[in-house]
Amino acid sequence: MDTDRYQPTERTRARRLPERAAYDRATVHAILDEGFICHVGFVVDGQPFVVPTGYARVGETVFLHGSTGSRLGLRPGMDVCVTVTLLDGLVLARSAFHHSMNYRSVMAIGRTRPVTDPGEKEAALRALVEHIVPGRSDEVRGGDRRELAATAVLALPLREVSAKVRTGPPKDDEPDYELPIWAGVLPLALTPGDPAPDPVLDPSIPTPGHVASWARPAR
Amino acid sequence: MDTDRYQPTERTRARRLPERAAYDRATVHAILDEGFICHVGFVVDGQPFVVPTGYARVGETVFLHGSTGSRLGLRPGMDVCVTVTLLDGLVLARSAFHHSMNYRSVMAIGRTRPVTDPGEKEAALRALVEHIVPGRSDEVRGGDRRELAATAVLALPLREVSAKVRTGPPKDDEPDYELPIWAGVLPLALTPGDPAPDPVLDPSIPTPGHVASWARPAR
Repeated sequence: MDTDRYQPTERTRARRLPERAAYDRATVHAILDEGFICHVGFVVDGQPFVVPTGYARVGETVFLHGSTGSRLGLRPGMDVCVTVTLLDGLVLARSAFHHSMNYRSVMAIGRTRPVTDPGEKEAALRALVEHIVPGRSDEVRGGDRRELAATAVLALPLREVSAKVRTGPPKDDEPDYELPIWAGVLPLALTPGDPAPDPVLDPSIPTPGHVASWARPAR
Repeated sequence: MDTDRYQPTERTRARRLPERAAYDRATVHAILDEGFICHVGFVVDGQPFVVPTGYARVGETVFLHGSTGSRLGLRPGMDVCVTVTLLDGLVLARSAFHHSMNYRSVMAIGRTRPVTDPGEKEAALRALVEHIVPGRSDEVRGGDRRELAATAVLALPLREVSAKVRTGPPKDDEPDYELPIWAGVLPLALTPGDPAPDPVLDPSIPTPGHVASWARPAR
């Protein structure tokens, strides 16, 4: 087995537009590490639900956090699908039909496992903060025993995984290239604004470097 | 029945953090109209799948487009969950435990219906382009009969719908407010870069206003 890539399965092999599919770990990891929010799908009484939640990748595991305490919902041992999508641009073709988007997405399916070992849980919660704002974990108050107990963390091993990537200019039908219509890509990126201090923050506390110079990993 | 809001059901009533839940149509419509990509959940052989795809709202219907032709997948008459999430900022608290994100999301559940009527399909495809780049539909080549036939469009009526919204500064535990730790929000927004013309575009064709001045509706 090729260890640099995930083995496609019946459930992860792309049927439509297979030229956009990727299974190599480097591509998958880069997408997961750049995103913030995953959409987790799970099934209750036959009905699918999709909820956004924070996550972090550690090696070949994705840790999930957040609305996992919902009575509705997401529990350990459930079959889930975790999807992360990064939107890179609007693809504006000469014909309505060929309009598209440039994006990078990852879909991981499998069964969640509860994270109960205190050491693993603490490491996962640390990763969840570090994933969002690298460098912040060491500067905030860490979790205490009560907080650790109150937080549900689920782990999903990265086994059945695929990525999809669309890049580049629009692809029009050959005759349409003669039309006097502007075509191209409008790039989009998630960009930070000016940090907004908590209104009750002591104004003598400066904005730390991990906030002032926050940026996602370069592609 | 209050017609300005969706009636919460057993499946859409928020259990966790109910203060973040909203059911009024104005909030739901504004989130759907600002987003670009929805995450659609559906079930095949008991396994949930979550795929990103383009969409557009027209009145009380969401039209879905794109990867619907996949052999894997999304078909008319399926129970689905369509979730749209807008990320507004990183909420940086004084304790690791209270880190969060500011976001607005909508979850709509129900059964998809195929859009087969040519008139409705044409209107839906027009809406899908107009939703992404208002003003563009009139400037591009419209779909012909072959393209209309090749495009699968699904409709989801907005009936069981809920929104979730988190705004504002971090909420820390009372004793933590004394800690000398910076806390606040790092705002995030999806922002456009400079339009990138198709490399084969005739350079005498100017960038149209609907591209040059593209922006999402103000909140």
